[in-house]
Amino acid sequence: MQSDIFLDNAATTRTDAAVVKAMFPWLEQNFGSPATLYWLGTQAKEAVEEARQQLAELIGAEAKDIFFTSGATEANNWAIKGVAEALADKGKNIITNGAEHHSILKPLSYLEKKGWEVTYLPVDSGGLVDPDAVAAAIRPDTVLITTVHANHEIGTIQPIAEIGRIARERKVAFHVNAAQTVGHIPVDVDLLGADLLSVSGHKFYGPKGVGALYVRRGTRIMPLFHGGSQEKKRRAGTHNVPGIVGMGEAARIAKREMNDEAAKLTNLRDHVFDWAKENIDDIRINGHRSQRLPNNVNFSLEGIEGESIMLSLSYPTVPEARRVYISTGSACVSGSLEPSHILLALGMPAELAHGSVRITMAKGDTQADLDYALKAIAAVAERLREMSPVYKKTRKQEMHGA
Amino acid sequence: MQSDIFLDNAATTRTDAAVVKAMFPWLEQNFGSPATLYWLGTQAKEAVEEARQQLAELIGAEAKDIFFTSGATEANNWAIKGVAEALADKGKNIITNGAEHHSILKPLSYLEKKGWEVTYLPVDSGGLVDPDAVAAAIRPDTVLITTVHANHEIGTIQPIAEIGRIARERKVAFHVNAAQTVGHIPVDVDLLGADLLSVSGHKFYGPKGVGALYVRRGTRIMPLFHGGSQEKKRRAGTHNVPGIVGMGEAARIAKREMNDEAAKLTNLRDHVFDWAKENIDDIRINGHRSQRLPNNVNFSLEGIEGESIMLSLSYPTVPEARRVYISTGSACVSGSLEPSHILLALGMPAELAHGSVRITMAKGDTQADLDYALKAIAAVAERLREMSPVYKKTRKQEMHGA
Repeated sequence: MQSDIFLDNAATTRTDAAVVKAMFPWLEQNFGSPATLYWLGTQAKEAVEEARQQLAELIGAEAKDIFFTSGATEANNWAIKGVAEALADKGKNIITNGAEHHSILKPLSYLEKKGWEVTYLPVDSGGLVDPDAVAAAIRPDTVLITTVHANHEIGTIQPIAEIGRIARERKVAFHVNAAQTVGHIPVDVDLLGADLLSVSGHKFYGPKGVGALYVRRGTRIMPLFHGGSQEKKRRAGTHNVPGIVGMGEAARIAKREMNDEAAKLTNLRDHVFDWAKENIDDIRINGHRSQRLPNNVNFSLEGIEGESIMLSLSYPTVPEARRVYISTGSACVSGSLEPSHILLALGMPAELAHGSVRITMAKGDTQADLDYALKAIAAVAERLREMSPVYKKTRKQEMHGA
Repeated sequence: MQSDIFLDNAATTRTDAAVVKAMFPWLEQNFGSPATLYWLGTQAKEAVEEARQQLAELIGAEAKDIFFTSGATEANNWAIKGVAEALADKGKNIITNGAEHHSILKPLSYLEKKGWEVTYLPVDSGGLVDPDAVAAAIRPDTVLITTVHANHEIGTIQPIAEIGRIARERKVAFHVNAAQTVGHIPVDVDLLGADLLSVSGHKFYGPKGVGALYVRRGTRIMPLFHGGSQEKKRRAGTHNVPGIVGMGEAARIAKREMNDEAAKLTNLRDHVFDWAKENIDDIRINGHRSQRLPNNVNFSLEGIEGESIMLSLSYPTVPEARRVYISTGSACVSGSLEPSHILLALGMPAELAHGSVRITMAKGDTQADLDYALKAIAAVAERLREMSPVYKKTRKQEMHGA
């Protein structure tokens, strides 16, 4: 039997074999806590500090400004609630947009219930935020701007450096959720003008359960975890040493491989778009065509539920078929019947949003695998459309009308 | 060279080889996210649910009431801030005691700054909270009682079931920080009367970076992590699958081994106390003599800095000596020069608190290893006392006076 084809790397990635190898000694053998001062503890502390340096080098930061967390959700919650609270005396307006990740939007809704006012800027049909709109939205009581670097669903890369410049000029703290970009495309906190930047380990071949928040020196922020004095008293809790070491190794590998991989994936991505447009009827590309993550493909298929495609590909009826894993809507909202809020924010009708297919590739993916997946998607789409009364009706009308 | 002797298991424990083995497949091979609906995701989801069941069985809970976190610090922060916020309209008094862990006391200080009022009950010289004092302290605006199950420093086991009964009768939510007890002694959420209970994976031979909060059905609590709909929308963020599976395996092993190990460790603990009292001058036992964790030994040595003992044992000057790892003061407050707030809460003078030595054993520890460590401690203590002007002066006065 041939191997599965995993094309849902925006949800999570395979932990790199080298990362697993790097983590291994820190579980059973060198299991000390970095908070302890004896030899076993100092070994762990050195490993954590090396990982901090590795991550810092990947994002152009100083190591001392990196704070380890349990993942990007914690980093996003901490950044938003922590800055809001630290600057509550200064003002209670926060600027974001409607196409952000739930781990941004939900903490913001929470703050709204507590008296903060959130400005949700629109995005254009490609998912882009307009920097001029950000500049225009800044008020005297604006304390934070939060913008995703690249969207997890449609891959659109935001004009972060321009927004960062505006934030800097206007002296507003700027948070960037870089969960989808760190380790995939160049991220430099200074070039982006980020005061805070969220990182997720398992999105770039590191382990789950670990992430980081970059906090530029001088940025006021309250802790989310109070307790022990770890992470300069800003984030309590025993360090997840194996996880942190793993993410450090993933950062080291990414720094070396990232640019070559991104070039290859960009070619593959464009091939996928071209093939899909050529071979599948009634398809619509979602997101920006070029200002987009190298590994992200997203399109909607008229008359089809994305979930049906996803499940058909994952549980193929032909025994010799390879399993193909893709995503639809927002992969983080499992079990939800609502269409993706990201696609709706682009101005897409709900029925098309339901028919979205997201393909997110990993380093090393081959054209042969993608071609296999594309043919499977096309075949499933055709079968589902044959069964769809809605789609057939539309087709018939068109044919009669022609 | 003989192996090190690790006697700081209240800080962290060696990840069990079987736990590492259980985690391994969920890193590189089955790396799916439980939030996804395809085959690779459902495999991960099943693994997470099995771990939830394993942990539930260890603490007498229903699996649906277990919520995975990044550790006990997150669980404690979540329990305290989440309940305080959910019940803010009902009242703003919280009852605790002065001998709690920092991950309890610091979130409480934070709440105090925001208008909550915290009642800090005293503990007796053994570290015990008086349940009658808890009952007397409950006010109409009391919304939460939080008590550690067993103290991380002196090992004292609190009369949790009695406090739980009072909390139940008076309809006040009851949180138990069980980081030191789960997997070591029997913990049953119903017998303890806990509405919320914090668990730490790496304290019972599971991995770092994972823990849980038990939340009894019907307990009102706000999330700490807002975002995706994981954990029934109560704790957002991609599941740390390898970590959760590892903690589940640790729970399964603990359920099987715990009682036998506790019996052996209790004998060993008592042997350590007896030997130390017999062979080391001017020693004082800290904590309750019998209502105490099976693996916890804590004593103070007059005229000595605990940190000096700890470092001498960890970096022995004799090349053939085995490294011995013990703790002093609060191991979570590294670099701090302040004496342990726990020991001060027992009414101990600061200078004695500075001289505390904590030995916390692991399953499988042998008397031979403990005897080696004890002799090393005695030898180091003697050497340090010879160099101590304070201690020599006291001795001389006593001799002259005699």
